[in-house]
Amino acid sequence: MQRVLIYMVGTAGSGKTYLTKAFSEWLDLKRLDNIIVNLDPGAENLPYAPDVDVRDWFTLDDIMVKYGVGPNGAQIIGADLVGAEIDEIKDEIDYHDAPYVIIDTPGQMELFTLRRSSEIIINVLGRKESVMVFLFDPVISKTPSGYLSILFMATSAVFRLGIPQIPVLSKCDLLGERELEKILAWSNPDELYLDLSEKGVTKDLFHVMRESGFFRPLIPVSAVTGYGMDDIYDCIQEIFYGGEDLERVLY
Amino acid sequence: MQRVLIYMVGTAGSGKTYLTKAFSEWLDLKRLDNIIVNLDPGAENLPYAPDVDVRDWFTLDDIMVKYGVGPNGAQIIGADLVGAEIDEIKDEIDYHDAPYVIIDTPGQMELFTLRRSSEIIINVLGRKESVMVFLFDPVISKTPSGYLSILFMATSAVFRLGIPQIPVLSKCDLLGERELEKILAWSNPDELYLDLSEKGVTKDLFHVMRESGFFRPLIPVSAVTGYGMDDIYDCIQEIFYGGEDLERVLY
Repeated sequence: MQRVLIYMVGTAGSGKTYLTKAFSEWLDLKRLDNIIVNLDPGAENLPYAPDVDVRDWFTLDDIMVKYGVGPNGAQIIGADLVGAEIDEIKDEIDYHDAPYVIIDTPGQMELFTLRRSSEIIINVLGRKESVMVFLFDPVISKTPSGYLSILFMATSAVFRLGIPQIPVLSKCDLLGERELEKILAWSNPDELYLDLSEKGVTKDLFHVMRESGFFRPLIPVSAVTGYGMDDIYDCIQEIFYGGEDLERVLY
Repeated sequence: MQRVLIYMVGTAGSGKTYLTKAFSEWLDLKRLDNIIVNLDPGAENLPYAPDVDVRDWFTLDDIMVKYGVGPNGAQIIGADLVGAEIDEIKDEIDYHDAPYVIIDTPGQMELFTLRRSSEIIINVLGRKESVMVFLFDPVISKTPSGYLSILFMATSAVFRLGIPQIPVLSKCDLLGERELEKILAWSNPDELYLDLSEKGVTKDLFHVMRESGFFRPLIPVSAVTGYGMDDIYDCIQEIFYGGEDLERVLY
């Protein structure tokens, strides 16, 4: 069976780590063999036990001491070091021989999407087998301008990483029914345009963005209730085994 | 004279801190009174002496000890604490009574653009007097997909912060003449489309983005040679004193 690598990508606090845990547990229930890889050298109090952990190679604390830098500098060095150690990390992943590899990325999204090492990581681990689950933070997504802001961040990640993207609305249990409905309705550009108080953008922009595939329905998910795990799984299946043209799913 | 607040915004490593220093020095040369505000509690080895410094209230190291968290957690708490201390920070800024206030923001862009505290900071210090200089990292901007990725990040910041944006290509001294020409040419959507190997996006998208004002010429700047400082200054003048409609400049 082909291996699939699932990168959890999103801004700090969007819930990557808990979604990693919840999705792994869901796969366990379905008796689908999976492992978790933690790529954040600064991870604290992980709620899961990673099968492969970059902190076995180094932690941010180690880097601060070794390189005599503060937290900011350590994050940058850490992100770059992951790229340097990726061959060894790959060996450990290969050793587990699991069909589903869930990869938890560093808290600050930019540390994964904008450092050059992410390109190296994706290439070494297997670009064609890779997909990212992009988490929309529910608190930021509550306002039309916040939603657009995250939509542009998600689009940025597509161009930078060049792998298919499954957009999800995380922690949907935190949202009231009406809030949730409203956010989900914004994947229709007309609805979003109606609710935007700042009409500086043209409606045309949204429509052409939809044609390009950027306005896609969000999958509401909750790591607390387990809601939406099956939808993520179905999306992955469709991308890799559904005979979909990869290009079409990507953009 | 009206006060202007200039926020330096950009991804980690794009050169915000050195551009802050260079622009302040240029204003000094022109005998234009200005102060520098450092809003990054994790700043290390600043090349300038800030007039107002969030580290006088707290540093990331303080937070790690006080709250018993690691570097990742400290950054998030730090970003939120800046919002809580903004009244006192404003008092110090007011005390200096300078017409130009240059504000250096935290290394990771998301810590400023996506935390709720940035909205509070901008509102308290004066939304109508605020402008952001958005730095395009020259290394990432070298490839068409990297350029697009940063363009979407810049667009995201416009929606999130809601203040006028001056896009600059930083560290232009690091680029060869041909590289520089090529990047600057990409503010024409046709040129960018030609160079994109991945044609998943429609050309229409770029054109409508241009109509909405997202494809704007980048100002090449260099903190090393001082190149482009006058252009940044001219843009600020135009935005605040040029009789331009703010809405038009914003989008």
